[in-house]
Amino acid sequence: MGPRWKGKNAEAQALADPMSKIVSQLQSSLIQSDSRALLSGNDTRLEANSEQANLLIRSCFGQPIWHSMTADSDKQWFQLGFEEAFFMCYSLKCIKIVGEDNCPKNAEEVWHYMKSCNPSFPYLYKAYLHLRLKNWVVRPGLQYGGEFVAYRHHPSFVHSEFVVLVSSEENGDANGRLKVWSDLHCAVRLSGGVAKTLLVLHISKHGESDSSTSFLDGSSVDELTIARWSAEQSREDLRKTK
Amino acid sequence: MGPRWKGKNAEAQALADPMSKIVSQLQSSLIQSDSRALLSGNDTRLEANSEQANLLIRSCFGQPIWHSMTADSDKQWFQLGFEEAFFMCYSLKCIKIVGEDNCPKNAEEVWHYMKSCNPSFPYLYKAYLHLRLKNWVVRPGLQYGGEFVAYRHHPSFVHSEFVVLVSSEENGDANGRLKVWSDLHCAVRLSGGVAKTLLVLHISKHGESDSSTSFLDGSSVDELTIARWSAEQSREDLRKTK
Repeated sequence: MGPRWKGKNAEAQALADPMSKIVSQLQSSLIQSDSRALLSGNDTRLEANSEQANLLIRSCFGQPIWHSMTADSDKQWFQLGFEEAFFMCYSLKCIKIVGEDNCPKNAEEVWHYMKSCNPSFPYLYKAYLHLRLKNWVVRPGLQYGGEFVAYRHHPSFVHSEFVVLVSSEENGDANGRLKVWSDLHCAVRLSGGVAKTLLVLHISKHGESDSSTSFLDGSSVDELTIARWSAEQSREDLRKTK
Repeated sequence: MGPRWKGKNAEAQALADPMSKIVSQLQSSLIQSDSRALLSGNDTRLEANSEQANLLIRSCFGQPIWHSMTADSDKQWFQLGFEEAFFMCYSLKCIKIVGEDNCPKNAEEVWHYMKSCNPSFPYLYKAYLHLRLKNWVVRPGLQYGGEFVAYRHHPSFVHSEFVVLVSSEENGDANGRLKVWSDLHCAVRLSGGVAKTLLVLHISKHGESDSSTSFLDGSSVDELTIARWSAEQSREDLRKTK
């Protein structure tokens, strides 16, 4: 199953405007304005000017919050997921994450905080990072029964190709779907039914604890796709009728 | 990964001589000679005349036993696996299985005997039957870490495409390889390393016990392929260099 582009010019448009370039423009712009995201509860909010808002939308980070929370009409707030915020802070190094006292937190503090809110955070982030570094667009996958969905480019150009399950020996997968065949089979059917492939990213730790960012260097990602198959396919009877 | 034919004419030869036709010739010939296979210990042996021996070899059932066990030089013995013998007896209905008293055993007796030798027999047979009915050539897969390997046609024409793991809720898979990620990953790597795809056939029971042949109607097979994936594949950087 290859990418399903939306409309006949979508692939050409996507090729002409690579995701890596958009992300790198966003990165420069946010660094230039010394951008800060406010971490509060389960919520991370980033203020963006109109150029940054445009780049955030084109690179698919966060969700714009449409009711204006600032008097300045050039400003727009974006709500970032934990993985998105950490990626922009720690990997792209283009934002700082601040607490309610407006003081920047260091990476270890943010890691610890996010892990305390969601014990799976280290594994989810490792998976998110893995795909984003390869220029996949990664969005929440809850509606398809996965942690993420992955797009080859912006969702306005292309349908998502993969439903991503994240698993690990330590943490299992979030819902134990890989341990019970019927659940796995369900996940595969669901993915297939919406023309996506099930992608399992398995995170293996190599001795490092997941309680600090050193987990990122001390772990690796294995990637498997799981697809339905049919014994009939490509067999002699079918080929005769071709 | 499609079929890897052996030599440039192999595909045409295979197409011109469909497996279903060879099996059906074998079936007729064995019925005509009222053939019997002797079940003794873990061993099932079938006597074949030269035409049948040729058809058994072309349809990939059993292993010829080269040291002649009969004075008649036109005769050849074949050693059949349990699944092969049961398939020829119960599905093709072209041989009878006899005990050492030379009395034909009925299907339930054979089922019970084979299951007592190998508790996984009902699941292995269900998987074997499933693939053979779709004209796949099915051979033992031990050397690739699976229960079976599946070929699109005779192994002299084509390499095996699938390493087949058989699993079930009741019986697990033979070695628990699907429960532990590192083992599964090993199996996928091993299959990929020999240019085969890992095919998991999962047998679900619908209430029927596996202690009689009614299990075959009271169970179903789900088919999944598991393959390695790489986040790099088909991404923008690769496409630029094309």
